[in-house]
Formats: sequence, structure tokens, C-alpha cells
Amino acid sequence: MNAPQDPKAFAPEYRVVGTRPVRPDGIDKVTGKAIYGTDHIAANMLFAATLRSPHPHARIKSIDTKKAEALAGVKAVVTGRDFPVLASGGDGRADMRHVAQNCMALDKVLYAGHAVAAVAATSQLVAEEALALITVDYEVLPHAIALADAMAPDAPVLHDTMFTTGLPEKPAKPSNIAMRFEVGGGDIDSAFADPAALIVSGHYTTQPVHQGYIEPHAAVASWNADGQAQIWCSSQGQFDVRDVTAAVLGISATNIRVMPLEIGGGFGGKTTVYLEPVAMLLSRKAGRPVRLAMSRAEVFLASGPAPGSEIEIRMAALPDGTLIAADLEAWNRSGAYPGADIHAGTMSALMHYRIANTRMVGWEVACNMPSTHAYRAPGAPQLTFPVECCLDELADKLGIDPIDLRLKNAIRPGDLNARGLPLGNVGFVECLEAAKAHPHYSAPLGKNQARGVGAGGWGNYGGPSTAAVSIAADGSVQVTSGNPDIGGSRASLAIMAAETLQVPYENVRVTIADTASLGPSMGTGGSRVTFATGKAVVAACEVVLSTLVHRAAAMFGTAADGVEWRDGAAYCRSGDKAGQSLTMGAIASRSAHSGGPISAEGTVSPQDYLPGYGVHICDMEVDPQTGATTVVRYTAIQDTGTAIHPDYVEGQIQGGAVQGIGWALNEAYLFDKTGKMDNPGFLDYRMPVCSDMPMIDAVMIQKPNPAHPFGVKGVGETPIVPPLGAVANAVSRAAGVRLRHLPLTPASIYAAMQGKA
Amino acid sequence: MNAPQDPKAFAPEYRVVGTRPVRPDGIDKVTGKAIYGTDHIAANMLFAATLRSPHPHARIKSIDTKKAEALAGVKAVVTGRDFPVLASGGDGRADMRHVAQNCMALDKVLYAGHAVAAVAATSQLVAEEALALITVDYEVLPHAIALADAMAPDAPVLHDTMFTTGLPEKPAKPSNIAMRFEVGGGDIDSAFADPAALIVSGHYTTQPVHQGYIEPHAAVASWNADGQAQIWCSSQGQFDVRDVTAAVLGISATNIRVMPLEIGGGFGGKTTVYLEPVAMLLSRKAGRPVRLAMSRAEVFLASGPAPGSEIEIRMAALPDGTLIAADLEAWNRSGAYPGADIHAGTMSALMHYRIANTRMVGWEVACNMPSTHAYRAPGAPQLTFPVECCLDELADKLGIDPIDLRLKNAIRPGDLNARGLPLGNVGFVECLEAAKAHPHYSAPLGKNQARGVGAGGWGNYGGPSTAAVSIAADGSVQVTSGNPDIGGSRASLAIMAAETLQVPYENVRVTIADTASLGPSMGTGGSRVTFATGKAVVAACEVVLSTLVHRAAAMFGTAADGVEWRDGAAYCRSGDKAGQSLTMGAIASRSAHSGGPISAEGTVSPQDYLPGYGVHICDMEVDPQTGATTVVRYTAIQDTGTAIHPDYVEGQIQGGAVQGIGWALNEAYLFDKTGKMDNPGFLDYRMPVCSDMPMIDAVMIQKPNPAHPFGVKGVGETPIVPPLGAVANAVSRAAGVRLRHLPLTPASIYAAMQGKA
Repeated sequence: MNAPQDPKAFAPEYRVVGTRPVRPDGIDKVTGKAIYGTDHIAANMLFAATLRSPHPHARIKSIDTKKAEALAGVKAVVTGRDFPVLASGGDGRADMRHVAQNCMALDKVLYAGHAVAAVAATSQLVAEEALALITVDYEVLPHAIALADAMAPDAPVLHDTMFTTGLPEKPAKPSNIAMRFEVGGGDIDSAFADPAALIVSGHYTTQPVHQGYIEPHAAVASWNADGQAQIWCSSQGQFDVRDVTAAVLGISATNIRVMPLEIGGGFGGKTTVYLEPVAMLLSRKAGRPVRLAMSRAEVFLASGPAPGSEIEIRMAALPDGTLIAADLEAWNRSGAYPGADIHAGTMSALMHYRIANTRMVGWEVACNMPSTHAYRAPGAPQLTFPVECCLDELADKLGIDPIDLRLKNAIRPGDLNARGLPLGNVGFVECLEAAKAHPHYSAPLGKNQARGVGAGGWGNYGGPSTAAVSIAADGSVQVTSGNPDIGGSRASLAIMAAETLQVPYENVRVTIADTASLGPSMGTGGSRVTFATGKAVVAACEVVLSTLVHRAAAMFGTAADGVEWRDGAAYCRSGDKAGQSLTMGAIASRSAHSGGPISAEGTVSPQDYLPGYGVHICDMEVDPQTGATTVVRYTAIQDTGTAIHPDYVEGQIQGGAVQGIGWALNEAYLFDKTGKMDNPGFLDYRMPVCSDMPMIDAVMIQKPNPAHPFGVKGVGETPIVPPLGAVANAVSRAAGVRLRHLPLTPASIYAAMQGKA
Repeated sequence: MNAPQDPKAFAPEYRVVGTRPVRPDGIDKVTGKAIYGTDHIAANMLFAATLRSPHPHARIKSIDTKKAEALAGVKAVVTGRDFPVLASGGDGRADMRHVAQNCMALDKVLYAGHAVAAVAATSQLVAEEALALITVDYEVLPHAIALADAMAPDAPVLHDTMFTTGLPEKPAKPSNIAMRFEVGGGDIDSAFADPAALIVSGHYTTQPVHQGYIEPHAAVASWNADGQAQIWCSSQGQFDVRDVTAAVLGISATNIRVMPLEIGGGFGGKTTVYLEPVAMLLSRKAGRPVRLAMSRAEVFLASGPAPGSEIEIRMAALPDGTLIAADLEAWNRSGAYPGADIHAGTMSALMHYRIANTRMVGWEVACNMPSTHAYRAPGAPQLTFPVECCLDELADKLGIDPIDLRLKNAIRPGDLNARGLPLGNVGFVECLEAAKAHPHYSAPLGKNQARGVGAGGWGNYGGPSTAAVSIAADGSVQVTSGNPDIGGSRASLAIMAAETLQVPYENVRVTIADTASLGPSMGTGGSRVTFATGKAVVAACEVVLSTLVHRAAAMFGTAADGVEWRDGAAYCRSGDKAGQSLTMGAIASRSAHSGGPISAEGTVSPQDYLPGYGVHICDMEVDPQTGATTVVRYTAIQDTGTAIHPDYVEGQIQGGAVQGIGWALNEAYLFDKTGKMDNPGFLDYRMPVCSDMPMIDAVMIQKPNPAHPFGVKGVGETPIVPPLGAVANAVSRAAGVRLRHLPLTPASIYAAMQGKA
């Protein structure tokens, strides 16, 4: 039996890895057959709608649902009172009370859009009509959306149980400041006091932005009188939906079977639940399946955007360009129920540079807007943005090429990572070198145009995955994954299975299982699936391969070491049948008589993931008359590890870059004075579309991860980190003034150019 | 770690095995929420209908579908020409050409009801309207439905490629006689020539009968342009549907994902495909999902009843009751595409008795009726019936109690089975002893009443199964089976998992996976699921248990042998943490940091199954004025092995007994002179209903199978074997005349009593 590729002896001699076969979900999606969240139809299904608070902060004095319940066609109404009372405190992952209250407010609403009631009826129209019959008596409270308002000494406090964590002592009274987090090392005071140090500093802001996935949240739930339930929904993790919904409702996880549907984008925003527990309660009351979905406006109003941040930064370099100190303090506007994005963001901001003396402090601050949530490399873009701007300022002041300055300080294999362990085979240096050598970097610029560089990194992740592999009697290969396919994992897992088993890609079919059909997997996030679930697939393939060889050996009447596995078949090397071969199908079709089905699960939870790094080059043109911007050219270079299916890797890089460009140039949550979001729709919340963008040149630096059988590192999150700095650096140069406040709208650029900002 | 129950040391000291917890599918079914074949709704689904031949035998000269295709709302029409041309010959399981042609006729129709075309349209009404617009030009051929007609020298031959197999030489010309099969041993001629021998003989007939499952066949198929397909259907085996449909259509098995729905009865009749390939072809043409379902009439006309049989038998006994010889020749009316029921039937007829000299010959004969199919112990009831009648005649003639005669000749552990191997822990003797001791056997009889005894056996089966077991973070247990739950396997598998893991039944949820989510399993049939899939579940539980113990050991900082598994938790027996314990949930919730998900597949293909035996006692009353019968009392005793969930075991025994009683008393396919079935509906095809039956007293003899962790043997098929003989023996005594031709209708009984039969 040939061993699978020795991970230590990486060489790009693969048959299938690195090819670009047709995607398995393509036809379904382009022909409209793919079933997304709202496409699922359950027999006898009801339709539901959600009543949402118009106030950003109010006490619910009473809710009268009698008239709604009396409306013909209404089958169930639920409010926060229908949720079980959950004990305070976390369950190790998140405070389920907060998740429950974010699904539906109990005593208080904390943002305009906060759900207060839901109705299930025989049609969507009746459900919506019934909402108008529900009377909510609110006591409107002062609200705080801006950071300064939320942190003011007399700020309206959202949670009277919230006491800042991470301080030396528990504060005397509750506040909106949820958490303080600090990391760093060395002696920043001495470093900044170095007389040779050149110091740059600034105050930066980014705005809350939404992931902008094309598919709104939707769920169908059916909860029986005996406690067993099914949920059909599109999410980034069916097991997370199961476990969180069960925890919120106080029931056993395996009483819920979550059926994953296709997902129209998540980017981190579909790793929690908003609708599922509500649909469950409605179903329980109505005794029928219930569909609950968000409109686009509801997605903006009531799902989790990325937090906006304010950052104070100062950095110091020696005249030769050596970075000697960085001091960064950041405040996240975390919305109604603060999370911990600031943690990862703080850890990421300086991860791509060697700096001896650092202090990074992060704060999570609650405010009266939707509870923020993960968005591709959560927390990192906001905090890397000021770092990259400082690098650019330092480069200018030191007269060093911006890439050279970054190269001089770039992190390298053997340097210590954030966990204090030596870094493995990382490729940031190679990215910078590729950027410098790229034709883009030396291409001439037009009038009113300037070039910016931005870099950044992301830690990536591993974590638990289960996969199963089985061989059908005709020799075709079934691979089962527990991860929703967002970025092409059906293709990448098929490729890795085909490579391991030495069969054509077309012989392998990958399917996403529901929670009752496969052991659990962590969700599709953290750039983890091709890495961790890929390892689970390879592990299962290796068991299957070993089984195939042993079964073939028995059929040949020889020992297992007398069998060679080659080109998807067993070849007999000894005994009477030397020279004979058995196809996978021939072995599998005898399996009933040779020991049973040829099938195995692989379970893994790898911790040997490696971070990814990117360097982006951006050419911007700024109209001096209006401040209007044009992205003229954009190149995104990334250390991807091995690209299993390069199309998808390039697509991830392009997608991440565009989302980062949108964050830098256009996107922001805008609130009116009453605390309502002013722009909850794609017309007013301006994401870049194809016609706004040049073709993004995605360059893959495939420096392999030796801990993965095929060298995978993780790809999806890193590319959103560099654009904020790259764009801001380019625009600042084109405008002739340093711009530190995102988004860089024409108005703000024009004002800055006029010296008014 | 406690080892799971040692199979060698069987003792009824279980915690969960043998209890009668609430069935997991009960609420779904009684509240109408369970999704059966026609309940599944696919988005954008079309509705299909089948055009069927009115002639039992005809050549299709042409089919004109143009008008149907032109009807508004019609989206696809298919005929036999749309099926791929399959090579002749078998694939090891069945001749796929015959399966394909049974789905849709190509050149010839072979029975009235044979499908010739199908239409998919935007509504069921339009589809049915379109059928009337299809013109089929038939050349009507002579037909043969009765055995004599089919075997006549000038019989119309159904298949010009069918040459009798099992003969010393291939016949010169094709005929309707598909197969001859013979087994036996000893020297029957000498035995029958023994002057001491008392010989009885007779000619017996049984009629074709339908399984009568309450749910007609139904399937929804969606086949994409890229070749990937999904099928939702209720069947006895989703993997069989996948593999057979793929083979019929000439595509790769894993290109089809079969989603199992609830099944409303199968009894062997849902182990093949009729609709799925047709729905697939319609879907492919229409580019949309298609639902195709049978009406009740179509189920009778075009699915597979059990074959009717004619049997010539003679048996010889010595005056002390010792059976010395049996000679049995049987002909099955196998319908359009003969199978091999005669094989199992022939092997089963005498399996419960020790007889030194036997000859059993079986024939499969094609005729112009629906292709017959398995029905609970396929082939055995028909051929055991004359054996049990002969035993009764011998008992009468010898003056020996019928049970004593059977006891004298009963097969016992150590006797050789049909495969020539010594029988294991079989319990036929115990059944007979229990029957004799049962109060029923000595209860007084009323006027016109008589008592009959019938016995019989069935080999049961093992075969390939895959199951998966995983532990959720809250400690609840997910068990995944690949077998549709017909007779309560969700409950029995949950019980066995709970017993193995030492957790409460309520902590375990069992779900049926689709074909893309779990390794393959042989279908639900052969009384195999609780036995074989149970073994797979226990195997998976043992891996999970070992993983739990090792993970707990690591958490305790001790070795695995320092951990005891008890009451669903790990107890530390050594080291610093001696005395501490970890629940399953505590271990599982740490699994991401201790090596990955706690989940495993078990794959098995056991061959160490044991046969089951039953003895039934039946009291019948016969009205001398009319021949009308009443089942006065009925007791069914069976060697079941361990009853994992006794309710279900008793239910199987009762259900099998009632079906056998219907076979004996009422049921038959009736054909008119044109060869059409006269009674394709439950009004005219008379199955017993509750009000026809007394409460069946089901008595379980739980003699365990030592090869199964909990002693399971298999239960579902055996109970249909004894009733034909038991009923016929009781009626014959009550009527005062030996009745050898089923069904025992009032008219036939009355005629016999008048000496006219």
C-alpha cells in the first residue's frame, strides 16, 4: 500500500490537488435548483413575521397580543416571555441568556430593530397583518450609539449586570464597558523615549459595516409535542445551530436535527442564531412547521455587523527602519451584547511584524445598535488599518520604500507567534518580495493617482471536524462533511479524497450531512474547513484505503503487504495471483462477504494550523474637484499554503479584497437622531459591485503547511485585513493629506483636501 | 472500562434491554407530521402519472406521445425508449434489464398494468389528462396467467431469451420456466418403500397475495444537468434504491442521493424500484423535480405480490411418529420477471424437522401477471403449508398429538442446518413445549369449532450494515442508522446503545441517514436490522466508549485502566483525582481540545445469524350452513431470541400471524378472462381488519443468539410461516374434510363440505 503523501516531503507532484475541476454545486446554483433558507417547503408549513422595536432603548412595560391571536389565520404568537428563563453566566462559548434576548427582547429593547414578538400564520400576509395588531407599551429610555455617548459617565447603561472584565478589580457599578484586554511585551516607555526613535501617531476610526451576504437569514422549524425537532436553515454550522438553539431553549441537543441548506454567503455573520429558537417556539405552539425569514432591512437592523472601532496608536522606528515600539489602544462599538472581537483584533494588529516593545489594549463597549458579530478575520481589519497607515507614514518620513520597510520588520519562520510558540513555515516575506517584484508595483501612475500598500495577517484556525468516506459497490466514493460549503469545500474535499485514494475527481461526491447523520464539526469559519475538515477526510480515506488493501489481500489470498495500491486499484505482488488487480468497485461489491461496508469516519481537532499573510497594492485616483475615488488597479498577494482548488483560493482573495475596499471607501451604519438606522438597504448602504472594481489580481504564494497532508493553511479571512490600509494609504497620497477616518467618502476626502477635516 | 456484555455470558440482567419505552416515531405518526412518500414537497415540483397497458400480453408496435407533449402544462413524457439500453445478464444481484423493463415496457407488455409511458406536468390533473392523449398501438398476444397455461407446450412465451436454468442441459428452446432448483439428501425411494412407513400425500395450491402495505409507492426525483440527483422516497432500503436506480440508468451510484422518508409498511414489497428511474428520467427531461406515485389500484396491478404456488407432496412416518421421508415439488407463479423466491421457500419448507431422506424441487414459472416479489419470509409460507398439513394428517392417522408428533421430529441445537453447519442455540423444541403447555391448547372448544396447529421456521439474515454513534457536547447520544425503521428499529437501536453506554434510553436519539451521509447498509428485510445493524451500533458504541475512557483518563491525568465506566460516566480509580467522575457531557464538551469529536462508525456483515421458529395454535369456527369462518382464538409462540423492545416483537408476531391468516382465508389475485385483475382494491381484495380478528396472543421464547451482544435472532418474518398450516388444519377439522387449496373462502369450504370439491 502506498502511504499517502508524506507531509514532510511536500512536493507539487499531485495528480488532482492544484487542478481546477468544475465545481460540484455549480449547476444547482446557476439553474436555480439549489435550496437556500427560504426555499425549503415543509408540508403544512406556516409563515411567520417578527415585530421589531422602533426604539433603540426602551423598557417593555407590556405586550398585548390578544388581537393578533384572534386574527383569522394566526396560529401562534410568541414574545420573550415564551423563552425559558436561562440561568445567568456562560456555557463556555457565549452567554446563552444574551443569545436568547437577542433573539427576542425580554424586559428591554436594546436597539431599533430588536425583536419583541413573532407571529405564525397561514400566510405571510396574515402574519404581517397580525404584527400591526400587537400593542407594545414602551418606556423609552435615553440611548447611546456613539462610542463617546456609550462611555460617558452619565451614559444610559444597557445592562445593569454588566461590570467591566479584565480590570484589576471589579468596578463598583455597572457600565457599558464590557471588557478590557491587554497584550504586549518589552518596555514601550523606554523604547518611545529612545532619542533616535522616529515616532508617528494618530487617532483612527472605522465604522460598523455589515458582511452583506446576499441571502437573508431564514429558518424552518418543526418541533413536536414529544420534544423532537427539525430545523432547516442555511448557516455556517449546523452543529452550532443545533447546540445554541438547544441551549437557548434548555433542551437536549440531539433532540434537534438541523438540516443544512445551501448558504448564500456568511463571512462570519451566520455563526449564531437569530431566528431558529423563535421559529421553534412558534412551531411548538402552533403544532406545525413554521418558516421565519428576515427581509434585507431586518438583516441590517437585527443581525450582527462588524463593530466600528476607534484606535489611538503610536509607533516608533529607528532611522534604519527597524520598528522598536508600538502602542495601540482600541475601543470597539460592540452593540447590544458585546462579544470578544477585540481579543482577536488586538492579537492580530501587529502579528506580521517583529517589534520588541509593544502594548496593545482593547475595549469592548456596549451601545444601542445591533449586537456585532464576526466578519472575516473578526476584529483584525479595524486594528491593522492604523498600523499599516503608521508604516506608510514612517516609510515616507524615513525615505524608505514602503515594502522595504515592511520587509525589514517582517515576521519570519522561527519568530514567536502570539501564543509564544515559534512560527512554522510562514510566508509573509515571500509575499512582500512578490509584491515588490510584481509589475503593478513599478507601473506608471496617471494624473491624480497614487499607490498604496497594505499588509496584514490572520491566525487561521483548526478545531474539531468529523468526515466520513465510503465506497459504493460501483467503486464511486462518497465523502460526507459536516461543514456547509461556503467557499468551495465540496470541491476541495473531493480533490483531497481523490488524491489520497488515487482516483479521478469525478469519482468522488461530497455531501453535507445533517446533525443527526455525522459526528459534530465546528462551523465553517476561521478559514478552517479545507485545513481541518480536509484532515478529517484524509484520515477517513486512509482507513478506507487500509481496509481496501486488506480486503484485496484476502481476495488475492495474500498478505496486506503483498498488495500495492496504485491508480485507485489493488495490485497483487505475491502469491498465486501476482500481477492481478482489483478495482475499488470489485473490492467494494464483495464487501458484504469480506467483513462489511467499506466506510469510515475521520475525527480530528488539529491545533497545528498556520497563519496567513497578505500584501495588497492599490492604485487610487481621487477627483480633486469632488473627492470622488476610483480604484484603478488592485493586486492582492497572499501566502495561501497549497491551493487545493486554485479558482476558489483566488476567489476568496478577490472577495476579501473587495469587501475590505468597500469597508475603506463606502460602507457604514448611519443612524438618525432617534437612533434608527438610516440606510438599511443596499441602495443606501453602498457595497462595491462589479462595475465599481477593476479585476483584482490575486497572487498565491503557496508556501505549504507541513502539518497538513497537502500543505493547506487557510485562505478565506486574511484577504480582508490589508485593504483598509492599502486603500487609505493610496487615497491619502492621492489627496495629499493623511486620512484616518473610514469610510473615505468623497465628501470626507474633499473636506480633508480643503483642510477642513 | 467495563466491557460491554459478554455475549457468551448471556443473562437477562439488562437495564434497558427488555423494557418497553415510548416509541421515538409515535408522536410524528399519530399527529400526521411524519413525512411519507407523497408528503415530500420539492420546490418547483412537477406531478407525474403513468400510462399502463390494458392487455396482459402484447407487442408495442408504436407509441405516439406528440399530443400529450403538446398539452399545456406537460413538461416531459417518457417511454421505454428513454431508458438506456442495458447489457443482458445480471450484475450479481438481479438482471437490471428486467428491473428496467418492469419500470417501463420496451417492446412488449407482460401484464395488464405494465407501465408504457409516463407524463410530468404542472398538476396531477394535467398529467392524467395527458395520459389519455397518448396512443399506443398494441399487437395483442395470447396470454397465460394460470400455471397450467404458462407451462403448456404451446404456451405463449413471455421472454424469448428465457431458457430454464438448473437443468442438466440448456433446453433447446425458450419457455416460461425460468428455473429449477433441487435440494435434499438421503434416499427417498428406499424410505418411501419402507413397509412400515405410513405415507400421506396431496396436491396443494396457494394464490398470489399482496403484502398490502398501507402506503402506496411514491418517489420524488430531481436529476440535474450535471448528473447529480436526489430521490426522496419511502423504501425498505435507501442504498438499494440508490444502487438499483443507478444500475438501471447506467450512472454512478454516488451521483444519486436517496433521502429515506417514513415508510408505511413494506413486508418485502419495497425492496425494489418501480417509480424512481421513471421519475428520474422525467426530471432530467423537464429540468425540475418530479413526483410520481401509485394509486392503490396501481399497487395491486404493478407492484410485486407474493407468488402463488402449486405443490405436490408426500411424507412418510414410522408408526412411532418418526418422519423418515419427504418429497416435495413446487411451482411458483412468478409473474412477468421471475425471481428466486422458490429457492428460499424450498430451503425453508422442512427446516424445522429432522428428516433423513428428502427431495425438494422448486420451479419458477413466468406468467402474465405482475412480477412477484418478496413478502415476509419469501417463499416459505407457501411451501411450509403442505408440510404442516401432512404433519396433521399423519398425527391423526398415527393417533399422536399433533404437537407431540412435531416435538418428536423437531430440529435441535447441533443438528445440521441447510448450509450443512451445526445449528446453534435454536428454540423450536421450547416453542412446541410452550404451545403444549399453553392454556389455549387445552381449552374447550365450542360447537362447529376445531383447533389446528401449524409450525414453521425462517433462516433470518445478517449482512452488511453501517451505523454511527456520536456524543453531543451536552452528553446526549446520536445514533445514525442506514435502515428505514419499519418495525421499530429506532427504538431497538436506541435501547442497545443505551445499554452499551449505560445511559438512559431518553438520552439517545436514533435517526435514519440518507445515502450520502453514512456508509451503506443492506435494506430493512430478512429480519436483519436489530440483529446486524444492532451489531454495528454496538460496535460503534464500543469505539465511542473506549474514546470516552481514554479522554477521561487524560483529563484525570491517569491511564485508561485507571478509569471505570459506570452509569454513563467515567470514574477515576487512581492518581490525584481518584474518586472524581466525569459525565459524558463533560468529556464531550472538551473534545475539541482532547483530540476531536467523539464519534465513530461501526461496519459489520455478520453471518452468525440464527433461524427463528414458530408454533401457532388456531381455533376456527365453520358455519355448516354457509362455510363462513370465524377465527375464535389464536396463539402465536415464537423463538425470538432476546426481545430488545418486547412491544415491537409482539407486534411483529401479531402482524405476521394476521397476514398469514388473511393468506389462508381470504386473499387472492383474481383475473378476468381478458387477463385483467378483477379486484385491485381493498374492498374486493379482502385483507383481515381488526374486527375480523381476535386478540392474537403473542408468546416470546427468548432463547438468545450467543453471537449477538444481547442475544438477538430476528423476528419479523417467521410469524407469517405457520398460519397457513394452522388455519387450514383447524378449518379442515371443523369442516370434517381436508382442505388443500387456499384461500379457504366460505364458498370453497361449503363446496368441500358438500363433497363437491
